[in-house]
Formats: sequence, structure tokens, C-alpha cells
Amino acid sequence: MPGSLIDTRQQPLSVGIVGGGIIGVILAAGLVRRGIDVKVFEQARGFREIGAGMAFTANAVRCMEMLDPAIVWALRSSGAVPISIGDHQAEARDYLRWVDGYHESSKRLYQLDAGIRGFEACRRDQFLEALVKVLPEGIVECQKRLQKIHEKNETEKVTLEFADGTFAHVDCVIGADGIRSRVRQHLFGEDSPYSHPHYSHKFAFRGLITMENAISALGEDKARTLNMHVGPNAHLIHYPVANETMVNIAAFVSDPEEWPDKLSLVGPATREEAMGYFANWNPGLRAVLGFMPENIDRWAMFDTYDYPAPFFSRGKICLVGDAAHAAVPHHGAGACIGIEDALCATVLLAEVFVSTRGKSSIVRNRAIAAAFGSFNAVRRVRAQWFVDSSRRVCDLYQQPEWADPQKRIKAENCFEEIKDRSHKIWHFDYNSMLQEAIEKYRHNMGS
Amino acid sequence: MPGSLIDTRQQPLSVGIVGGGIIGVILAAGLVRRGIDVKVFEQARGFREIGAGMAFTANAVRCMEMLDPAIVWALRSSGAVPISIGDHQAEARDYLRWVDGYHESSKRLYQLDAGIRGFEACRRDQFLEALVKVLPEGIVECQKRLQKIHEKNETEKVTLEFADGTFAHVDCVIGADGIRSRVRQHLFGEDSPYSHPHYSHKFAFRGLITMENAISALGEDKARTLNMHVGPNAHLIHYPVANETMVNIAAFVSDPEEWPDKLSLVGPATREEAMGYFANWNPGLRAVLGFMPENIDRWAMFDTYDYPAPFFSRGKICLVGDAAHAAVPHHGAGACIGIEDALCATVLLAEVFVSTRGKSSIVRNRAIAAAFGSFNAVRRVRAQWFVDSSRRVCDLYQQPEWADPQKRIKAENCFEEIKDRSHKIWHFDYNSMLQEAIEKYRHNMGS
Repeated sequence: MPGSLIDTRQQPLSVGIVGGGIIGVILAAGLVRRGIDVKVFEQARGFREIGAGMAFTANAVRCMEMLDPAIVWALRSSGAVPISIGDHQAEARDYLRWVDGYHESSKRLYQLDAGIRGFEACRRDQFLEALVKVLPEGIVECQKRLQKIHEKNETEKVTLEFADGTFAHVDCVIGADGIRSRVRQHLFGEDSPYSHPHYSHKFAFRGLITMENAISALGEDKARTLNMHVGPNAHLIHYPVANETMVNIAAFVSDPEEWPDKLSLVGPATREEAMGYFANWNPGLRAVLGFMPENIDRWAMFDTYDYPAPFFSRGKICLVGDAAHAAVPHHGAGACIGIEDALCATVLLAEVFVSTRGKSSIVRNRAIAAAFGSFNAVRRVRAQWFVDSSRRVCDLYQQPEWADPQKRIKAENCFEEIKDRSHKIWHFDYNSMLQEAIEKYRHNMGS
Repeated sequence: MPGSLIDTRQQPLSVGIVGGGIIGVILAAGLVRRGIDVKVFEQARGFREIGAGMAFTANAVRCMEMLDPAIVWALRSSGAVPISIGDHQAEARDYLRWVDGYHESSKRLYQLDAGIRGFEACRRDQFLEALVKVLPEGIVECQKRLQKIHEKNETEKVTLEFADGTFAHVDCVIGADGIRSRVRQHLFGEDSPYSHPHYSHKFAFRGLITMENAISALGEDKARTLNMHVGPNAHLIHYPVANETMVNIAAFVSDPEEWPDKLSLVGPATREEAMGYFANWNPGLRAVLGFMPENIDRWAMFDTYDYPAPFFSRGKICLVGDAAHAAVPHHGAGACIGIEDALCATVLLAEVFVSTRGKSSIVRNRAIAAAFGSFNAVRRVRAQWFVDSSRRVCDLYQQPEWADPQKRIKAENCFEEIKDRSHKIWHFDYNSMLQEAIEKYRHNMGS
């Protein structure tokens, strides 16, 4: 296997990816596998993902397979499904389940069938470690914190300037640098509201409890699967981790205040504080919170809901993933939307590479801008719908009406909407997206 | 990039591919990229493909991309489109064109639009050379001529015995060893008619002429594109090669006799012999033949039409490509059907790999047989239809009625059928095929 599949007989196409997170590295894998010359610039010393869990829809896994089948290999070999949301057999179906967290009955309100292997889960850090092995050596450069982007004119390369005083010259730049994207700040200016995420007025308490305790609080069935407990102005989600020895708890609450410190989204909290928000909820749910450690995390949720980016690309610079559209985590699918972005950008740049072979760099530069313009046109509506929808489903989980006996029927009507929103995410027709993207690219190129 | 993506924490799944031709190597690439342990055993000293041209439909290129995007990179970097059947711009559409070869007018009878990059062409040997670079080191072993396959019982490995006295032990075997497949002989017995291809009673004269001569005989428009000249009991196809400095000619004729020597399908012939078959055809076409060298090739066409294989798999042994279904070349898409096979087999074996992780070798062996059974069910009807259809379109090109003024309208009716047959090949819904294959596999496994 050669270091990279660059054909020396062709004019190379060089892409600089800012950010070595999951989306940046997956995008790099897709581009490298199509013979494109890629560098990933990561600001941290090593890989920056933390040990949190993440899940991918079956649809996102199919997108990964189109990017590079080895990405799916990396997912499945990265510590092997430490989060389980379905049953234990490989062929079992995965379900999302909602439970009444408020009333004594604690009854199941709704369940959504996500199909066989409807979600595949992993730990971020382990997945990223396996992913990096899929790339040839030398693609990722660490300790490269982006300082500035220099765009001269349309016919010249774009220059990335890093905090260590070094530079990189590339044909185009893709910002995959997350919710606090430096590339987004370059596009909109540091003072623009588009350049910064805003507080969603929800935060979460997070902690782990033992499976034994979870079973005593919830019963075996609930403890061993993923459940969302809904109720007035708050909700709680739990799922087993660490080979089902532990259960991960996240309790989300509404917060009318401003978040005090924009730089630190995670802070300390106590079990007692968390329990205060669920004082009138049912005993099982309160028992779960009671089993949490005395000192837990508080985690503020920011997103791009209030100030969605007016465009995802300008010229030869493009944004993907959270850099383009950061959402609150209530659909459990934020990374999946980023993977759709990566697939779209990869197929467009491969088309640029093939359709401009042997042409001048003027044509190629025009082609890159046409491809990124097509990306913007194809991706922005869906991604920004997803940001909105992530807020919306949280509001539905936390309807005040759950506590009102006369309004509970109204509250329960929400599940039809939740199903439709989930299906729109799960059953995305990415082949049509790719076809539309290529057609728009050709149209932009005037052919 | 590791040598191969095998995860040591999982029980490996080992696949032995017999035959290092285009389909065998593409299949290996798809499997390797999904973490499966693959060996390719090739009987020749090096790679055996000859310098003939081959073309792939846009649909087959999409299948390649699903197998491993680097296969498409290999196709496009392998000497770059030495056969041109469309226009010269990267964005131009490709067409198949049929011309009256018999009458003076030499008029265009029909053309079929294959779309943008509808066909991508390359030289077999150059493509194979680039393909092999996509595989990690050590996957392909040359000078391994298969002698025998030893199947003990369902729970043990399959043993391949080679002519050099060595052995290989694998979980399953895929025969990609072409029209004279040794693996097919193993499945049906050496004396079975299923084990051998049969003469289609057509042979071809082949040779090259210069572009200059082609233009003088046919005019610029025809000389620079692919055209099929139809007429009574024969037809002729030509297309530019070698950066349009030469034109490749193949003149196909009917032959009621048996082919004298089954071991040698290519033999010498003379220009005069070829011209004898086209004595009454139009002057342009005769001029083309007159420009051929004095000594040319005669090439007998064999296929599996008369004795189609009753099954493509038995237990842990499976056939793909020409080993399963060899067709005459008149659709120009034989390799495309083999690539569909490779995609189907790859996705099924990846499913076996994932769905039997941590299970016993008894379960895994049963899963392999279930997967190959699904492959047989999904692939055989289409592949054998393709073999039949390849004969059928040749008969239509060579209708005796082309020479009969009162029957020419009837003869021309063939193009509606030719269009339908071409579209069935070009617009194959491989996603539905894969879904059907996985469903049949799960059904076979009883889950």
C-alpha cells in the first residue's frame, strides 16, 4: 500500500483539513482513498476526542462505507460496542424508548424501531485511535493551531498560518474544527454572531452508576437498554456502558439564565443540585439520581440555532460538521450529519479531481469554488433543519404539560412528530444528495 | 497504513481467491478494506491480463467505488483512457452507435446515449498493474496453480492444493479463475459439460489500423468514435486507441463449424480471409479491412450459454466473474457483471464477519455457506440472462435480413430491444441487490 494514492502523472489536488476530530479524519480517509493529497492540521498534541460515547445510525454507517469501507472496520474494531442500546445478539434490532419519568407508573410511552444494527455505538477516543490507523503515515500533523488564513486571489493557493509560525499552502481548506471553529471565524469575522455558538438554555448533569444499582432502581429491562425519561422542564437519558457493568446517566434541565463562562462548558456540580430539579419525579428515577456520585459534571449545551451560518463555503474555503452547524445532542445524531457532509465534500472534490485533469490551475480553482458552492447549496438546508430539530425534540421531551393530568394526552401527541423527525434523519437518501451535488457542480461550471 | 486491517481481537475470517485477474484483485481489495484476511492465488508468474482494452459502465464504476474508492483511482490513473468511445471533453457524454455496414449509404441507424462518463475505458494490463498497488503487500501469491480442493467436513477449513506441492488452508474459497475455471471443474467434475465453455460459433478477426487510414476510409466523425457496423451474418466494431493514433478493429463472423482446437482460442489469420466475409459490404468498411496488416489474429468466442452452471456456490466454495458465467463480448460489459458479483460477495462476507463475531467456528462456517447460498440466489439469474443476451445482440447485429430490401424495416426494429437490454445492464439497482442478498443471508441463517 503506497503512502498515498497520488498519481504523479496528474496535477495533484491538495486539501488542507483544519481539525483532527472524527469528522476531519473520516473526511481525510475518503479523500486519500480517491487519490487526493490531504493534510489534517490538529491543534492538540495528540487526538483531542474525549472518552464520551457516540452512536451512528445505520445510514451514517453506510455513508462511512462509501467514504472508505475501512472506516466501518475502524468503528467495529474500536473497542466493540461499549454502549448498547438494543439487545445483545448481533442480529437484534435497536430501539429508542421513551418512558414517563414523572408519574408513579413509570410506563413506557413510546418506542421507535431503528432496525437491525440501527445504531452502532463506540467511545469517541477509541474510534478515533482506530480511524487514524486507516490513514497513511504523515497525513495528520499535530500541534498546528490555526492562526490565520491568507487568501490572495482566485488563481493562487490558500495559505494557512499556524501559531508555531509555520505555514501550509493548499488548493483549498475545509474547516472541521468543531463548534468553536477558527475557520468559521475567518469566514464571518471574529466579532460576528455567526462566528460563535450560543447557549441553548439547557444544561446536563452527567455521571455513571453501577449496573447493579441501575437494576435496583429501574428493573432489569430498563437498566440494560437505552431509555429516555420525559417530564416537565427536564428529561433524563441512560444507557449501559463498559460491557454493561455501568450505566451512563445524563439529566437535562432547562435554565433561563445566561451561561456564566463561555470558555468552559463543563463545570462541577453536586448530586443534590441535580436531585433538586427532579424533586417531584417518580421514585425509580429519583433512585437513579441518588446512586450518582456526590460530585458530578455539569455540561452546558451550546449550538448554532440562534445564528445559523448564512453560508457554509466561500471561494475555496468550506465548513463541515460542527464547524458548520453545531446542534444540541437530543437526536443522538450530530456526528451523522457531519458524516453526510464528509461524503458530499469527498464526492465533489473527487469530481473536481477527475473533471479538471490536464486543465489549467485557473480552471481547477474555479472548479473547487463551484464544488464548494454546490456543497453549500445541498447541505445547508438539511444541516440547519437538524440544528432546529434538536432543540425542538428537547422541548417536546420537557413539555410542562407532562405534569398536567388534563394535558397529558396533548403531551403524548409529540411522538408522531418525534418519529417523523427521527425518520428524516435515519432514512436520508444520500445517493440523491450526491447526484444533486454533482449536477449543481456541473451547472456551476457551466457545462 | 497497516499491512491489512485485521483486528487481532476478532476471530479472523480467511478467504482464498483463486485467480489474480481484474475481478479477483478487485474482490480482494473490497474484502481487505473490510478487515477480512485475503489471499489471491495466481497461477502465472506475474499478472496474466493481456494488453486488450476493456470498458466499464458508469454503474460498474459506482460498484467499484463501493468496493473501495481506490479501485476507481486505479482505473483513472492506469494510463488514462486509451480507448475513447465518446467525445474528448471530460464532461462529454458517451454513445454507442450503430451504422449500416452493408449498403453504400453507410448511414447511422441508431445511437444510444450512455450519459456523462457512461463508459470508462482502459487497457487491462495497465489497470491490473495499478490495481495491485491498492492491495497491501503479500496478498497476492503468484505461481500458484490450483490442483485440487479438499473439503473435509463443514466444521473444518478448506484446503487448496497447488501444483508446486504447497497447500493453503482457508475458511472459504472464491473461484475468480476465468472462463476455464479450475474451481468450476472442482464443483461439477472435470467431465461435466458445466465445467467447460463451449463455442459460440462466432469468431473475430482483430487488428489495428492507423487513425489516418481510418479517417480516409470512414471520415473523421466515425474514425474518432466507437461504431458498430451491422450487416448479414457479420459485424464490425472499431474504436480509437493509443491516444487516437490508432483504431482497433474487430470483425465478427458466423461460423457453422466446430472450433478445431479447444485449448487455443486465438490463432493466425490473413487479411484476405477476413475480406472474404465482407465481399459485398460497403466500400468504406472494405477499405477499413484493406488497411489491416497482412497477418492478423483470429479469435474464437466461447461462453457458458449452452451449459450454464446449475449453481454458483456449494458450501464454502463460490464462483464469481467468468468462472461462473462467461459471455461473448457483444455488450462490452462482461467485466461489469463480474464487478457486481465482487460487490455482492464482499458485502455478504463483511456481514458474515460482523454478525458472527465471538461465535463458534461452527456458526461461522454455517454463516459462510448461508452467505454463498444467498450469493447464488441473487446473482445467477442476472448473470445467466447476461450470457444469453450477449449471444442475442450478436444475432441481431448479424441478421441476414439486413441484406434484404424488403426486410430491412424488420431488421431495424432490433434497436428497441438492444436499447432495453443495454439499459438493463447500465441501470442495475445494485443497492436493492445488496439488500436482497443480506435479507436472504439472514433468512438462511434462520434469524
